[in-house]
Amino acid sequence: MNDYDDYVKHSRKITDVKMSMSVLSWDQETKMPKNGSKFRAQQLSTLAEISHELSTNKKYGDLLNILNSNENLTNDQKRNVYLSLKAFNKAAKYNSEFIIEESKLISNAFQKWRLAKDNNNFSIFEDSLKKLVDLRIKECEILGYDEHPYDALLNQYEPGLTTAQVENIFSDVKEFLVPFINKISKSNKIDDSFFYKKYSHDKQWDFGIELLKKMEYDFNSGRQDLSAHPFSTHFSPDDTRVTTRIDEDNLSEMIWSCIHEGGHALYEQGVLPENYGLPLGETISLGIHESQSRLWENNVGRSIEYWNCNYDSLKSIFPNQLSDVSVNDFYKAANSVKPSLIRTNADELTYHLHVLIRFEIEKELIEGKISVKDLPSIWNHKYKEYLNITVPSDSLGVLQDIHWSHGSFGYFPTYTIGSFYAAQFFNQAKVENPNLLNNIKDGNNKNLLKWLREKIHENGKRYDAHVLCEQVTGEKLDFRFFRQYVIEKYSNLYSI
Amino acid sequence: MNDYDDYVKHSRKITDVKMSMSVLSWDQETKMPKNGSKFRAQQLSTLAEISHELSTNKKYGDLLNILNSNENLTNDQKRNVYLSLKAFNKAAKYNSEFIIEESKLISNAFQKWRLAKDNNNFSIFEDSLKKLVDLRIKECEILGYDEHPYDALLNQYEPGLTTAQVENIFSDVKEFLVPFINKISKSNKIDDSFFYKKYSHDKQWDFGIELLKKMEYDFNSGRQDLSAHPFSTHFSPDDTRVTTRIDEDNLSEMIWSCIHEGGHALYEQGVLPENYGLPLGETISLGIHESQSRLWENNVGRSIEYWNCNYDSLKSIFPNQLSDVSVNDFYKAANSVKPSLIRTNADELTYHLHVLIRFEIEKELIEGKISVKDLPSIWNHKYKEYLNITVPSDSLGVLQDIHWSHGSFGYFPTYTIGSFYAAQFFNQAKVENPNLLNNIKDGNNKNLLKWLREKIHENGKRYDAHVLCEQVTGEKLDFRFFRQYVIEKYSNLYSI
Repeated sequence: MNDYDDYVKHSRKITDVKMSMSVLSWDQETKMPKNGSKFRAQQLSTLAEISHELSTNKKYGDLLNILNSNENLTNDQKRNVYLSLKAFNKAAKYNSEFIIEESKLISNAFQKWRLAKDNNNFSIFEDSLKKLVDLRIKECEILGYDEHPYDALLNQYEPGLTTAQVENIFSDVKEFLVPFINKISKSNKIDDSFFYKKYSHDKQWDFGIELLKKMEYDFNSGRQDLSAHPFSTHFSPDDTRVTTRIDEDNLSEMIWSCIHEGGHALYEQGVLPENYGLPLGETISLGIHESQSRLWENNVGRSIEYWNCNYDSLKSIFPNQLSDVSVNDFYKAANSVKPSLIRTNADELTYHLHVLIRFEIEKELIEGKISVKDLPSIWNHKYKEYLNITVPSDSLGVLQDIHWSHGSFGYFPTYTIGSFYAAQFFNQAKVENPNLLNNIKDGNNKNLLKWLREKIHENGKRYDAHVLCEQVTGEKLDFRFFRQYVIEKYSNLYSI
Repeated sequence: MNDYDDYVKHSRKITDVKMSMSVLSWDQETKMPKNGSKFRAQQLSTLAEISHELSTNKKYGDLLNILNSNENLTNDQKRNVYLSLKAFNKAAKYNSEFIIEESKLISNAFQKWRLAKDNNNFSIFEDSLKKLVDLRIKECEILGYDEHPYDALLNQYEPGLTTAQVENIFSDVKEFLVPFINKISKSNKIDDSFFYKKYSHDKQWDFGIELLKKMEYDFNSGRQDLSAHPFSTHFSPDDTRVTTRIDEDNLSEMIWSCIHEGGHALYEQGVLPENYGLPLGETISLGIHESQSRLWENNVGRSIEYWNCNYDSLKSIFPNQLSDVSVNDFYKAANSVKPSLIRTNADELTYHLHVLIRFEIEKELIEGKISVKDLPSIWNHKYKEYLNITVPSDSLGVLQDIHWSHGSFGYFPTYTIGSFYAAQFFNQAKVENPNLLNNIKDGNNKNLLKWLREKIHENGKRYDAHVLCEQVTGEKLDFRFFRQYVIEKYSNLYSI
């Protein structure tokens, strides 16, 4: 046994504990009887404590520092050690008081948020949210940053991403998307009313499974279940699960949540099992993760080629509901753009304005420029400004998302960045596989998956997100790929 | 924070880790996709290592020793400390080499056993089994014992139980049951052929759920799933789950496995949540646990009163299959006695001869009087002697049970002891609740459950098994209650 082996062993031990937490969380969201929540929270908190102890173990830190200056390691080994040391140094910045305070605040804030949302009363949540914002401001100082305190929070989810970069991205968004969406709003509406007919639960379920299988999601290394909010999770590359939600009055919800979560899961199933428990066995960042889900959901799953392949099957399952709907009608409805109140139901264009609003608010909260008590009016003002929508109630406005009650600040921008990565990756995939759209039309998704596996999945954390992007596409993340994708698709759809 | 609070905190931490392991194991048996097993085994092994580290933590041991001589504690607190110290001292006897060797041997033995069973070739398993027996012989010396090395193994599952006591119990079994079963074998057969008609999976499932609800099993604090072998497990009193297996060609399997596992689960649901993580929040022993499952399965679930209540419902679900079957026919079939090859399919009388055979073999293995290579012939000889059955193959004989491949020696006797406790407890319940059988007939199981809760469940480990038995029934475990139950029921059923 040498030092590197010792490191691998300890790193895998940490991962085993974290993956165990994921099993408990998955069970909590999908199977746990309702009375189980109290002790489950305690069990999860104990595992989190153990994970933190292992992650900040002094001997482990010493070992990482020794290995980090060992020139005899391979490049992959060096990369593992470098990233593990970085994670160690970060974990070591938190003392246990912070961890305990955070855990209490979040647990309390989550309850208050639910109550506030149920009662359409922001003031119930206000105090908890203020405390969480203050905690995150403190955390920015604990973690440190070069330019902007919010950088420290962005880095939790997208290593290396800065506030300045996000501002640049959103200035492109504003400049292009806001007028483009305006144009769409003034053109002819697309009819998507057939989505809201009655679609039986069991038949929807079966169709979702069929879509996952066609995506090459491996049910020997995963499974699908129902949950209140769709998510994907993984316990190893060999056990990566998805969930969905089925609304009998809305067919679209199940379809694109299945494809979206399937895209996340394909990424986790594509990481190499031999790297389990090491950075090279982990996905890069939330932005890259979201690029995989969005690529499948939007670039593939809302394309005419995809529905040329899958629509007959859907129509045979729901012949009455879809009797008057051609594949082209279906494709159009799948891409209908309509400014709306709720982010999670938004189309793939207005979606980014929802994210923009949250980013602007979070940034100013962390800067101390705005205060929590003013959030409802700020929120409503921005929805009017960017989406031309009047927010009728805080439950449907500032209280709609769970994230802040979980203390997650700096998370939302990864959704938008993921979409832009997706457009850039998908463009490259088409360049390198000229038959790609035909493959999709033929129901053959193997080539696309093979390309994603080789270019992205199998690397784990071998490269930082921006390096990977350059490796895969020859250039840095650039908004023009998304713009080009949007113009091509929607100009045609809306005759603009 | 005082010492006792520190102890409670650490003890709960250990329990949280163990309960997390139970969640991972439950998932493994019920939901996990097939490729997930490799990393799941590793995750479980890491949690086991952490649990062992916490259980043998020196500071924790010191704290327990200090508390154990603290006269200011309440009786319940003293009991908790006493039992935790006992567990600590036991855990401390094992060094990590033993734990690692054991884990490797078991993992290997399990694979060899499956292969041996599938190929009907005992020699494939022989070497692994020999190593496991040798390990257990070594373990007896590590743990220590007063009279017989096998006592040390029995104590793992039934604290305080000795080989001499088990021998006494089985001498009663032999003296009474062997001739009694012989008499039954010579009398008229009971027709139970209707059990083996076709019973649809989903309808069986629904009926099983109905039975669990009628037992007062709380689905807000539990759930039922399917698994290859039925089991019950718990993560807290508020989350205690059961599984069943459904064979469309054998109705009886689902019915009595549901009731059996439901009985186990009612015990776990009845332990007091405020004692979670402490000995008073744990069930006493496998024997007492089995008494709860067997009491519901046999004393309740194979009684005429029970089927007078539930048979109409069953018949309405399967009208064709049961058209010619009266409730009395059904009751008789539920109690048909037939010597058979497989323990898990045995009736409630011959069952104990299966256990007797395993006990006799285990004892002589640990004594070194017989050797592993001779087990097939010894097994077959004993099946002829006690059950008058010719074993056609080792797969259906010495290789049928999983337990030895798991390294479990000393476990089987708790099955039999459980049945005898069940008879004694149920007799007492009837004495104290003269309307009990009428309640069961009326489908009102609340009184029985209330009695079990107060007398047994809520105590947790407050009393040793034999003390509890005296408290509840006024006397030590006595075989005559089982004998009396058997004579009353079966003399009538078989007119003997």
